[in-house]
Amino acid sequence: MPASVTDSATPIACLIVIGNEILSGRTQDANIRFLATRLAEIGIPLREVRVIPDVRETIVAVVNELRAKFDYVFTTGGIGPTHDDITSECVAEAFGRPWIVHEEARRRLAAHYKPGEFNAARMRMATMPAGAALIDNPVSVAPGFIIGNVHVMAGVPRVMQAMFETLAPSLRGGPPVVSRTVSVLGLPEGIVAEGLGAIQKRHPALDIGSYPFYRPTGNGTALVAKGTDADAVAKAAGEIRALIESFGKQAVEGEIP
Amino acid sequence: MPASVTDSATPIACLIVIGNEILSGRTQDANIRFLATRLAEIGIPLREVRVIPDVRETIVAVVNELRAKFDYVFTTGGIGPTHDDITSECVAEAFGRPWIVHEEARRRLAAHYKPGEFNAARMRMATMPAGAALIDNPVSVAPGFIIGNVHVMAGVPRVMQAMFETLAPSLRGGPPVVSRTVSVLGLPEGIVAEGLGAIQKRHPALDIGSYPFYRPTGNGTALVAKGTDADAVAKAAGEIRALIESFGKQAVEGEIP
Repeated sequence: MPASVTDSATPIACLIVIGNEILSGRTQDANIRFLATRLAEIGIPLREVRVIPDVRETIVAVVNELRAKFDYVFTTGGIGPTHDDITSECVAEAFGRPWIVHEEARRRLAAHYKPGEFNAARMRMATMPAGAALIDNPVSVAPGFIIGNVHVMAGVPRVMQAMFETLAPSLRGGPPVVSRTVSVLGLPEGIVAEGLGAIQKRHPALDIGSYPFYRPTGNGTALVAKGTDADAVAKAAGEIRALIESFGKQAVEGEIP
Repeated sequence: MPASVTDSATPIACLIVIGNEILSGRTQDANIRFLATRLAEIGIPLREVRVIPDVRETIVAVVNELRAKFDYVFTTGGIGPTHDDITSECVAEAFGRPWIVHEEARRRLAAHYKPGEFNAARMRMATMPAGAALIDNPVSVAPGFIIGNVHVMAGVPRVMQAMFETLAPSLRGGPPVVSRTVSVLGLPEGIVAEGLGAIQKRHPALDIGSYPFYRPTGNGTALVAKGTDADAVAKAAGEIRALIESFGKQAVEGEIP
């Protein structure tokens, strides 16, 4: 996204996906797209994603690098009860804070488990950097947490999504980005490229993208105009329609399924 | 993945996903998992993924940072004909090379398009850093390229996958990582955590992971042992089975669908 799409007052976000299972190919990531979509709706563009392994030095270094660069840092993964769940203690180390039992988190977990099942491994899920604020977990109780601008969430998509929605009302975004898609069948992007480049030049504050698709129902191109100025987006979308029609093709509003 | 899983002679890889469409949530990424899986099979563990926007300074800086850190760098996205396809010229800048027409790439594209359709925008797809070697594209002709340890591929998954398979025979991996999964229904990871930690301690050269799942058919945990020593992996998998059975539950080989 050109820097011009959002002004300097718009907060920007990054996501750190922590987990060997993504890097080994075991697990298909489902968190990037969810967070990207929801953050865009809130007006906090996602500007970078890092996928990193469950390695202490890496997690500490990346958290410290990115919390200095972005207004909002989100992490997913590594906050369960097993030996490979080290995100929480690494975030404590990154902030130079002790890693201690959070009383309210302990209370919630103690109330949730049957007597005798709140064992030492599960107590790890109540152990957090000193001063952390809880992120509620309506699905499986064990909370995430916030420290500074870092928001630590679960990796399981259904739990992460529930945590994010409890957070969402407290996030402060800039003006939301408006997006319009115009699609066409049978017109390759190489043919519209020159005209599309001219539209981008006429609207330097917008982000004009071109995405070819190949489907059983036919090949084509989706052209997307995006920005915080809804009138400019509408104008650019009109110019994209006219460009498509100048090649004798039919412009379709939205994506072609 | 603990550094111990692979020795220092094992080459490691990173992937740079270039594209606003992933960061905006428009597109669900399908390239990370494919590359992670194929690279693991070849014995080149994927150790980091960065998703970055189509911004020149960002692409140049990230390519230069990561080509110094990893044996193999792969990029996906941004090599089409439109104004937002800037990966190729950014890689040229990162390497301090001129960005010039590659004669063989030009010849292939000229042979592919109808007369008059090989326009200036499409000529961009034949323009590469000086000295680049082509990566064949059996799907849509326009090639990727290799320069130094950087492998530049298309973003469309079907094209990227075809490009990768033409590359694969030339990639030199270390010993492939062997993986065994043992799953269990109705046994939360918080209960097996302590025993699992002990198994990890007995096999420091392996990577033992725990992945809870929540499915309509039931909740449970998948436990994974991974490493380059197949005998050690088999031994650890046996210990994981015994751990599960010690709680009176049935251990299932592989994932539970």
